Amino acid sequence: MRYELYYWQGIPGRGEFIRLALEDAGASYADNPPESGYKAFAPPYLKAGKLVIGQTANILFWLAPRLHLAPKSEARRLWLHQQMLTIVDWLDEVHDVHHPVASSLYYEDQKREAKRRAEDFRKARLPKYLAYFEKTAGGPFSYVDLALFQMIEGLRYAFPRAMRRLEPKYRNVVTVHDRVARRPRIAAYLASAKRIPFNRQGIFRHYPELDR
Amino acid sequence: MRYELYYWQGIPGRGEFIRLALEDAGASYADNPPESGYKAFAPPYLKAGKLVIGQTANILFWLAPRLHLAPKSEARRLWLHQQMLTIVDWLDEVHDVHHPVASSLYYEDQKREAKRRAEDFRKARLPKYLAYFEKTAGGPFSYVDLALFQMIEGLRYAFPRAMRRLEPKYRNVVTVHDRVARRPRIAAYLASAKRIPFNRQGIFRHYPELDR
Repeated sequence: MRYELYYWQGIPGRGEFIRLALEDAGASYADNPPESGYKAFAPPYLKAGKLVIGQTANILFWLAPRLHLAPKSEARRLWLHQQMLTIVDWLDEVHDVHHPVASSLYYEDQKREAKRRAEDFRKARLPKYLAYFEKTAGGPFSYVDLALFQMIEGLRYAFPRAMRRLEPKYRNVVTVHDRVARRPRIAAYLASAKRIPFNRQGIFRHYPELDR
Repeated sequence: MRYELYYWQGIPGRGEFIRLALEDAGASYADNPPESGYKAFAPPYLKAGKLVIGQTANILFWLAPRLHLAPKSEARRLWLHQQMLTIVDWLDEVHDVHHPVASSLYYEDQKREAKRRAEDFRKARLPKYLAYFEKTAGGPFSYVDLALFQMIEGLRYAFPRAMRRLEPKYRNVVTVHDRVARRPRIAAYLASAKRIPFNRQGIFRHYPELDR
């Protein structure tokens, strides 16, 4: 099966969570910009034969067992999906740190609000999510580990000071991250030109004033 | 099967999306406050025999086919789940209108930011979501129709002026809403003391200054 991923080009964003699963599995896929008139509310969406699937967590729920990145057991699949949905919530909050007023406005036009939101994110929300995954991380390898890896990578880029301070308390999370980085196909992908660097058009953005 | 729903008492919130499905199906369920030390990141969660499922959309993905509120076909289930995840995104944005800085702060402490976010919500995000569901609503009745009903009810409570202005353009969405309201078990539930009124502790809140 050849998969077709549709997502904005030039930013890792939500598409990267799908790419990491496809790369880890050595799957064959095309990486395309969204078509005009696509039916999902927003990219990413995935085409697989006749299926067209939207919403990041929904795509991975369907895709992961086919890539052997999730077991077939229903209870375990539901648990992993619950974890993935929690990661997507976390990712949304990362986005809203630099865009607390409106996605349609520039960061510069909501900088004052962003500073307030960033303070709450660093002091309350970020430790809350890390503590949750610290408690629940582990078990057989799955696509959720790949997603947690991507969160940690993105957070290190966007909030290097906060992450240096927090990481020593969340060793299980860091262990999951490090194991993912050492997986041969992931290591090769990260070293390749296909891996899109984090940048200021993406969800994870580094603004020093938001990482005090 | 008797279901146990766990959610904050006194607010409709995310729990109401599960309640509406259980009520429409005439299912037997208990409605409990969250236990201390629950394992999900946040309520609601559902217990069904040995299963414990968290995340609103995940609960409904599992529950709806059992309540005959979703077909068994995989393609259709994935599509409905995609729609439900989009509704959950919309609901998150409704929450962030009155809490754009931090959930942990009072509305009064982020009123200035809320006014700016509310303007973008009324002018850009609300019409965007309505237009999306206007285009995609329809097909056999499902739990997503119940969720869309709840969104419209909540939005009418929180943004009565904006909704009066917008609704005439989105007749398919209003038709779905009206059909749900006429379903006998839903009508009985809405008229009962079990239905929790919208209020200023919930996700949908009416602040006249945010609905100009």
